[in-house]
Amino acid sequence: MTAKYFDAQHLRFVLFDLLKVQELNRFQYHADYDRETMEMTIDAAQQLADKHLLPWLMEMDKQEPVYQEGGIKVHPQVKEMIKAFAEGGWISAVYPYAEGGQQLPYMLSFAASYIFGAANYSGSVFPYLTSGAANLIRNFASQALKDQFIPNMFAGKWQGTMALTEPEAGSSLSDITTIAYPTEVGHYLIKGQKIFISAGDHDAVENIVHLMLAKIEGAPKGTKGISLFIVPKKREENGSLKSNDVTTAGIFHKMGYKGAPIAHLIMGEQDNCHGYLVGEPHKGLSYMFQMMNEARVGVGLNAVSIASAAYQTSLTYAKERKQGRLPSRKDVNLPQVGLIQHADIKRMLLQQKAMVEGTLALLMQCAYFADLERVAEGEEKEKAKLLLDLLTPVAKSYPSEKGCLSTSAAIQIMGGYGYCSDFPAEQFYREARIHPIHEGTTGIHALDLLGRKVWLHESRGFKLLLQEMGACVEKAYAYVQLKEHAKQLQEALQLLRNTTVTLSKLLKEEGAEVMLADATLYLEMFGTVSIAWQWLNMGVVAAQKLEQAKASEKDFLEGKLYTLHYFYQYELPTIKTLANRLCENDQLTMQIEERHF
Amino acid sequence: MTAKYFDAQHLRFVLFDLLKVQELNRFQYHADYDRETMEMTIDAAQQLADKHLLPWLMEMDKQEPVYQEGGIKVHPQVKEMIKAFAEGGWISAVYPYAEGGQQLPYMLSFAASYIFGAANYSGSVFPYLTSGAANLIRNFASQALKDQFIPNMFAGKWQGTMALTEPEAGSSLSDITTIAYPTEVGHYLIKGQKIFISAGDHDAVENIVHLMLAKIEGAPKGTKGISLFIVPKKREENGSLKSNDVTTAGIFHKMGYKGAPIAHLIMGEQDNCHGYLVGEPHKGLSYMFQMMNEARVGVGLNAVSIASAAYQTSLTYAKERKQGRLPSRKDVNLPQVGLIQHADIKRMLLQQKAMVEGTLALLMQCAYFADLERVAEGEEKEKAKLLLDLLTPVAKSYPSEKGCLSTSAAIQIMGGYGYCSDFPAEQFYREARIHPIHEGTTGIHALDLLGRKVWLHESRGFKLLLQEMGACVEKAYAYVQLKEHAKQLQEALQLLRNTTVTLSKLLKEEGAEVMLADATLYLEMFGTVSIAWQWLNMGVVAAQKLEQAKASEKDFLEGKLYTLHYFYQYELPTIKTLANRLCENDQLTMQIEERHF
Repeated sequence: MTAKYFDAQHLRFVLFDLLKVQELNRFQYHADYDRETMEMTIDAAQQLADKHLLPWLMEMDKQEPVYQEGGIKVHPQVKEMIKAFAEGGWISAVYPYAEGGQQLPYMLSFAASYIFGAANYSGSVFPYLTSGAANLIRNFASQALKDQFIPNMFAGKWQGTMALTEPEAGSSLSDITTIAYPTEVGHYLIKGQKIFISAGDHDAVENIVHLMLAKIEGAPKGTKGISLFIVPKKREENGSLKSNDVTTAGIFHKMGYKGAPIAHLIMGEQDNCHGYLVGEPHKGLSYMFQMMNEARVGVGLNAVSIASAAYQTSLTYAKERKQGRLPSRKDVNLPQVGLIQHADIKRMLLQQKAMVEGTLALLMQCAYFADLERVAEGEEKEKAKLLLDLLTPVAKSYPSEKGCLSTSAAIQIMGGYGYCSDFPAEQFYREARIHPIHEGTTGIHALDLLGRKVWLHESRGFKLLLQEMGACVEKAYAYVQLKEHAKQLQEALQLLRNTTVTLSKLLKEEGAEVMLADATLYLEMFGTVSIAWQWLNMGVVAAQKLEQAKASEKDFLEGKLYTLHYFYQYELPTIKTLANRLCENDQLTMQIEERHF
Repeated sequence: MTAKYFDAQHLRFVLFDLLKVQELNRFQYHADYDRETMEMTIDAAQQLADKHLLPWLMEMDKQEPVYQEGGIKVHPQVKEMIKAFAEGGWISAVYPYAEGGQQLPYMLSFAASYIFGAANYSGSVFPYLTSGAANLIRNFASQALKDQFIPNMFAGKWQGTMALTEPEAGSSLSDITTIAYPTEVGHYLIKGQKIFISAGDHDAVENIVHLMLAKIEGAPKGTKGISLFIVPKKREENGSLKSNDVTTAGIFHKMGYKGAPIAHLIMGEQDNCHGYLVGEPHKGLSYMFQMMNEARVGVGLNAVSIASAAYQTSLTYAKERKQGRLPSRKDVNLPQVGLIQHADIKRMLLQQKAMVEGTLALLMQCAYFADLERVAEGEEKEKAKLLLDLLTPVAKSYPSEKGCLSTSAAIQIMGGYGYCSDFPAEQFYREARIHPIHEGTTGIHALDLLGRKVWLHESRGFKLLLQEMGACVEKAYAYVQLKEHAKQLQEALQLLRNTTVTLSKLLKEEGAEVMLADATLYLEMFGTVSIAWQWLNMGVVAAQKLEQAKASEKDFLEGKLYTLHYFYQYELPTIKTLANRLCENDQLTMQIEERHF
């Protein structure tokens, strides 16, 4: 029997009961997707994960990729994985039939990614990087470039990457120094360095296709001078692949997420690195943001995947392990009770369950908006886009931050065994820690949320979100067991609104720097309210279904209500402290200076 | 230049300005310790750490101990380390001159341990395990056993351990099954298994001396039937060391803290494992608690050490690294600013500084009580003992839990570099995670605090602590810049008192199980108030000294006041949420059952 790494019943609850993904077939683009097809898609993803990903979870961590002879060797199974992803059509699944895709709803693509990531996070990143890179080419590159690159990428023969970060420019993209020199024959000559490039080089594919940010010689300073290029590791000349002067200078050794290499690349050491401009010059960052926004929500989802696997590992352990006695029955003549009987263990299981299931719901909500943005029209489309844009920094960062705490709780439940490598709990803890960092740190996303997204279009997205949340409150008031929680969320919304108004005044009176000083706390508050919203949504569905539930479903639905209660008792109340701090304006972090540390 | 791994100025501030360790020489036992001698002791510890520990920090993590030929091989440097510890007299330092010790105050022993742990945690544990085990023998064993074991342990030739945990009895010591069969010639024959034994076997010493819990054949069930034995790996026969039938069955591979092995031991496979009873039969647990209490405070200190090294690593990085621009000055023509200029980075540095310096002060406060318990008399001695007993679970667990968050902040500041193994930040993160687990999990300590310590002797210890904290509030009111914080701590004390009263009622009305359900939250609340107390103490000293400080000292003292302010703005207010939850009594974690997960 394979270990349980996600809760299939919860996933289906979110997809079919909460968000009703099956109703997407009212749109022509998804007309072929009835519930049965959707169930088959989920089953297919699980089968792939069970067979090709899960068995190599721990082995890929222990036998990490090595840098040798100027290239990176990954675990041999990676090649099989990529083959399975390509053959299953997963790399191109969300794209149109006409382009070889399956017109899969994003919600189902998310579901598959969630399953893959929970089975083996490192193994799951390869196809999604390729798919995202191919999508940039699809949307912005010339037909010639599309024809040249996309088929091999969809076939899993060529790996896609996003190549942004440089040694002296991590979070600060305006400072990248990679240069593109125009040539008279159309291509550019690229010169520079990139670091931390995920899947930036490896031997499981024939070629690597970097979607790379660089500055055309003489371009304006800052982000307005950034262009997007396709820079392959090898380029085709006379029908065969030749070196394109992209050198792999090294590999970074990471704490976790070891199965997927991150590379240090040097372009143009021989002045012979060709780059192909995507779209117009100087518009690279706006193109790249399409891939980054997808990738950001994807990171949030990966964080949930890992937390999900950790939760299941600790839950199984807590059910099987006998340990100690309850405070009320300490008689040593009695046998030891199950670990899961202890209140503190149940609290830590609830903490994980609330985080995993709540953040999965939020991410699926985002996928739902992504679907509507693609297939709906008019106001429905526009609304979905506004909400998705607003929620992106939250959906990236909140699950990432909480994933670290959630995997930590899994270790704690397992005690000494949790800290040792016989179980994967410690691996999950190490892997989870990457998510608050890559694709923009939590601090960067907090600035994006409070410095930009909340105010965009006269705060229309923000107002819409409050409306959505308010509608959920109204629905919840109809259920006696949810009344108290409905009131709590109502108050939380009021607090979020008031805090935001206070901050808008601070912006006017004191300027952006003061207003943004505690942006990370604002993001945490925003995230907590968002998850509370999702839990109340789930509570409404559970309460509804409980009215005529079969006995077999009752435990599951009651479990939802208990977990909702946990979130509203232990997590939601923390926003008051955050709100107080956000409204304080004592400018502590402005005033303290380097010399005081 | 060696990397900075702790703040020597802060350590001296706590020792000499805050707690006035130099005044311990009013006691005869410490009459030889004037300030100069004390400074020399600290310098000697740092010299040892610089030379013998720090250079092997990362190498010992990468070349972890291996199990081969039935034994454990550690990094060759471990032998040199133990030799340096023994030659420096550190293993026996706190014991009387008459026994070969130096009558070192515990506060200075803590200072040394703090320095050693910050330089190389894995390397630092060997001598302290030996010292603690030797102390058990000193206090409870016969003179013959003392003569047989202690000299070789103090000389660093023999390693001491504490051997408690068994495969089926982790946190639940009453369920250990290792048996001791009496023989007619005095020794016992030991049979059983122990797991997770730190330094339980290694090749840097000639012998291992286990202080082991076992049950004498026919002993009563539960903790009342536990006895303490010395069980050496090798026993002396006819002047030479022979196998004592203690088999090393394996090594556990851990996430961090890799330099120190933890072993799986099997005793008596050949029915030839001799154990020597320490003290009286069936009193083993009460003896062991002496070592455990020392070890527990020691774990808290180790947690601070690691967090301290992580803080210094990230602080150095933040000072050196240039990255981005401030929200108020985004002009890309300006050079990038220092990472440390960003408010969010300063917040994360403050988080670490507040935790590291605040918890170090609390642990030194505990060491101060340990000193008074040893050398003072009458009421002063008794008071110190009560306070130390009460604070032990807090001093163990709060720094351990916060150490995980603090090392995480260090990684976050360093971004992608923090996640990679070029810097030790990720190692600190992995190492920190052991502390909430070993020597009793946080949950166990929470039960100890709320289930026992708070109520012991009609809550005399608790009342004394509130008095101490109240006295600090009074002192702080005298300083205009501390008035607001004094008021905050006063309110916090009131809240802690009220919450405790509410819980005592709950105990009477609903029983221990309900009262203890959220014990871990109570411990967090208690810990937060304790650190707030320490920060206000430090604030008083800083404010005093600022009145006539030299220019060179001003930054340091102002830094203290800023950090105090941070703690009172970001950390202390969280106790309200905890208190609310503790007083709620909805019995969520009682009601939810296994089937709901």
